Amino acid sequence: MSTTLHIDGDRLLKRLDQFAAIGATPGGGVNRPALSALDQQARRLLSELAFARGFRVEQDQMANLYIRREGAANVPPFVIGSHLDSQPMGGRFDGALGVLAAFEVLETLEDRSVETHTPVEVVVWTNEEGSRFAPGAMGSRAFSSGAIPPEWKEAKDQDGVGLDQELTATVAALPEAPLRPLGAPIAGYLELHIEQGPVLEEEEIPVGIVTGIQGTRWLKISVSGEAAHAGTTGLAFRKDALAASTSVMKRFYDEIMPKDQNARLTIGRLSVSPGSINTIPAAVDFYVDLRHRNNERLNDLEARVRDICLAETRSTGCQVVIEKVLDMAPVAFPDKMIEVTEEAARKLGLPARRLVSGAFHDALFVAGVAPAGMIFVPCRKGRSHCEDEHVEPSATIAGCNLLLHTAIGYCKLNVG
Amino acid sequence: MSTTLHIDGDRLLKRLDQFAAIGATPGGGVNRPALSALDQQARRLLSELAFARGFRVEQDQMANLYIRREGAANVPPFVIGSHLDSQPMGGRFDGALGVLAAFEVLETLEDRSVETHTPVEVVVWTNEEGSRFAPGAMGSRAFSSGAIPPEWKEAKDQDGVGLDQELTATVAALPEAPLRPLGAPIAGYLELHIEQGPVLEEEEIPVGIVTGIQGTRWLKISVSGEAAHAGTTGLAFRKDALAASTSVMKRFYDEIMPKDQNARLTIGRLSVSPGSINTIPAAVDFYVDLRHRNNERLNDLEARVRDICLAETRSTGCQVVIEKVLDMAPVAFPDKMIEVTEEAARKLGLPARRLVSGAFHDALFVAGVAPAGMIFVPCRKGRSHCEDEHVEPSATIAGCNLLLHTAIGYCKLNVG
Repeated sequence: MSTTLHIDGDRLLKRLDQFAAIGATPGGGVNRPALSALDQQARRLLSELAFARGFRVEQDQMANLYIRREGAANVPPFVIGSHLDSQPMGGRFDGALGVLAAFEVLETLEDRSVETHTPVEVVVWTNEEGSRFAPGAMGSRAFSSGAIPPEWKEAKDQDGVGLDQELTATVAALPEAPLRPLGAPIAGYLELHIEQGPVLEEEEIPVGIVTGIQGTRWLKISVSGEAAHAGTTGLAFRKDALAASTSVMKRFYDEIMPKDQNARLTIGRLSVSPGSINTIPAAVDFYVDLRHRNNERLNDLEARVRDICLAETRSTGCQVVIEKVLDMAPVAFPDKMIEVTEEAARKLGLPARRLVSGAFHDALFVAGVAPAGMIFVPCRKGRSHCEDEHVEPSATIAGCNLLLHTAIGYCKLNVG
Repeated sequence: MSTTLHIDGDRLLKRLDQFAAIGATPGGGVNRPALSALDQQARRLLSELAFARGFRVEQDQMANLYIRREGAANVPPFVIGSHLDSQPMGGRFDGALGVLAAFEVLETLEDRSVETHTPVEVVVWTNEEGSRFAPGAMGSRAFSSGAIPPEWKEAKDQDGVGLDQELTATVAALPEAPLRPLGAPIAGYLELHIEQGPVLEEEEIPVGIVTGIQGTRWLKISVSGEAAHAGTTGLAFRKDALAASTSVMKRFYDEIMPKDQNARLTIGRLSVSPGSINTIPAAVDFYVDLRHRNNERLNDLEARVRDICLAETRSTGCQVVIEKVLDMAPVAFPDKMIEVTEEAARKLGLPARRLVSGAFHDALFVAGVAPAGMIFVPCRKGRSHCEDEHVEPSATIAGCNLLLHTAIGYCKLNVG
């Protein structure tokens, strides 16, 4: 029967358009910051679609949103989903595809009156991107640990707006969705996402089955010197925080990625203060995003970054402070989840291949408390976090069908 | 008689405190952006002090403010003054000292009923710092050319507020001061300012007589690459605008100042977009402030900066665009102004020395239309453009007395 069961592709594509309009950018992308008014608008739209189908909608104190379709048994649910927040100039698929495909699965089960043993829940995790409030993946991290870390209470966005205030506002904006406790046993977690890399497109494979996720660390590096006049201060008298930072960054770029093809190093955010054209910078803050699939190599890379910071600032008169603001170890998904997904792909006649995720995802954290897995679909030129992020409609539909049949397969296994 | 004529030091020091309170920062500095509400508040306070003494107050369309004390003859005035805007985290003396000392000179002449042949005017030049709207020294530039360059109409601050709008608001905030045409013949211009360098303090000399100002160029360098995901994009696929900018900046720091002790190169403002921790930067804009006392050397340095930009971005996949946003040639002040100032210092018994200004000042532009000169006073450790900028009261008073007697000396010469 499962091979004749398919999702409604037109409905899914229409929904993607509908949600892409919330925070649409001129170049066809999306700017929907976590917990912003636009994020709240997207959550409301999804909730209204859920209420129209009679699904139960709940949220927790981290503003994670849950849409539940009951199963035959009163057992922990199988959870599918992703996130609705975006990068500042992000694409329309990163996150939203996983949420809307999961909701499409729920509607398809309802349309076709498929009774699952296990309840199925769609989840929208809060602030996966981490671009408004650091760190990223706050929703799935809090869910997995069962608590909101106290230090997040102090988190503020670049305009000084606090996370706490925005969480309260976001939960309050959806009074129809009752609060549930943060964290609960779940049977498993599966997330559909764009690959954000070039492999599937190059090999013309419509779906990827993810075996694990590389580890990520974010280091905030603060270099402080002394402000002084650009015209009158000779070289010997300067304590130039940007000159010192430049020496540090140059060695990062020269020595980290070129020497290990599995290493990733990016500096995506940097600020200079006071920021006046004719004043020598007193302070520079920048963030290093460091990744590797092997945790020991990641330790080595972090040690190297720290050594370079100290070595390159030693003779500049500047001080350097390094703070680790995110540390996510690499994860391997369980064989069972990978095998159920491969079995579903075979049933659907979809060519598939295994791969490691270069990006981190909410699944990385959920994997700490339940069997987790991911399905990838190819995106054009492997590009994401940009306005021209694009997924072919055929891949969108193939990925959603694989999500449907993997969910059914996993829920059936639970019966047995 | 002139050696017995002294300014009122207590009054001047009190005025400096009074104006430092307008935009005071927690660390004892001043943040009074050009044409802001705080700048308008300072202009209003000065105008009210002027009206109380019966002086005439006028302004022009560039919001330059003039306070006039009539002379015996109906001839072009001798002008003294400086600016009231500050750096974002600037000091309380840079600019304000020159304006308040000039006003103190006017009050002293009035207190002692000194009749000058030439009228004496105090001027407050608009937006000298250039930190809110580029370029700097807008007021004196427009005065000297007799017109506001059309391209300034498009200037906006970092919040998108237009220069045009703020000029109109600032002029309108002082309806008691009638408009006069922009630019007019003047007999001469003299500006008291802090040295912003270490020479006078190190040599324990209370006043410096400035013989000229080094040239300054501002180059805006825009590097554009391509945004992509930090975790999934391998080195070969990156067009990282910050990595390319880092290579450029490293060579600036290594090759410009270390090879010429009279060269100055500063990068004080830099922005990265989209500015997300896990997105490879698509664009970096930064400003190079380049200075030298010799204009041919300055040409060489600019050519070198341009060569480095092209050479270092060539193989990165990034594009670079260089725009010259400020170009001020070095200037030498006329011998006559220097000699009159030296004669006044001798009369006052003040040790003085000649020096070249490392910073640019409004006097640089006024020098294009009239004999101009400057007097420097030492500031602690040569530091300025920062909260702990400091001038000793004795130096403040000495500098103001020298301004008074140079003005009198110059106005007398005009009689002869």
